[in-house]
Amino acid sequence: MNKSKNLSESVIFPKGEKITNDYFIGTAWIEMLVSNDSIFNCPIYNVTFEPGARNNWHKHPGGQILLITGGEGYYQEEGKPVQVLHAGDVVKINPAVKHWHGATPDSWFTHIGITTNPQKGDAEWLEPVTDEEYSNLK
Amino acid sequence: MNKSKNLSESVIFPKGEKITNDYFIGTAWIEMLVSNDSIFNCPIYNVTFEPGARNNWHKHPGGQILLITGGEGYYQEEGKPVQVLHAGDVVKINPAVKHWHGATPDSWFTHIGITTNPQKGDAEWLEPVTDEEYSNLK
Repeated sequence: MNKSKNLSESVIFPKGEKITNDYFIGTAWIEMLVSNDSIFNCPIYNVTFEPGARNNWHKHPGGQILLITGGEGYYQEEGKPVQVLHAGDVVKINPAVKHWHGATPDSWFTHIGITTNPQKGDAEWLEPVTDEEYSNLK
Repeated sequence: MNKSKNLSESVIFPKGEKITNDYFIGTAWIEMLVSNDSIFNCPIYNVTFEPGARNNWHKHPGGQILLITGGEGYYQEEGKPVQVLHAGDVVKINPAVKHWHGATPDSWFTHIGITTNPQKGDAEWLEPVTDEEYSNLK
């Protein structure tokens, strides 16, 4: 698989800034498309993961929606099998459901994320998806 | 401009069903990506306009956000100049602002639409953008 080709196909919205918090393994970028405010109550962001990159397990008190725009990624809810995602897929993450998302080992991955009901509070970040967990998905 | 090439470049999410209500001029299609519900409060839909197609003037009581994924389109608020839109553009439409959107005369146009604060009520549909208004935009 041609990794750079995958990324270039995914660029509709800007890649943005490298994510520097402690809630990701590997390199990912975020561009805020719509910030959180009391007019729209609808924060929207474009997230790009390099191959192998993923976020920690986490929960959104008001839920989250992912719109996949390019590459190949993973989505997993606690206690359930992983789902493999491609452009055009839509993921509805219910409020307070523990989950993680990120790229597959061999592909870039880009999704738009929408935090629903943001008035209910910020994401609760939990433990990382270890290399052992991640490498056992395939 | 190659119209069919523009459309094919825009297809990330399904084109969906032809819109058959009276609030559009020309042909447009809609695919619901996330329906309106009380869990997410975040209806999301993919809208595709053929060249020259546009919706009537309208208002959303809770606002709307457009994420442009392909082609070339117009967005106009009442009393303001038209904006020309391309892939990667984001439009934040404040609650109750009278506006319309659609394709330019020579290009297909595709956007994701998000109805924000849907609890505030459905869109209020108003008069069409006449051929005279539309042809005077360029």
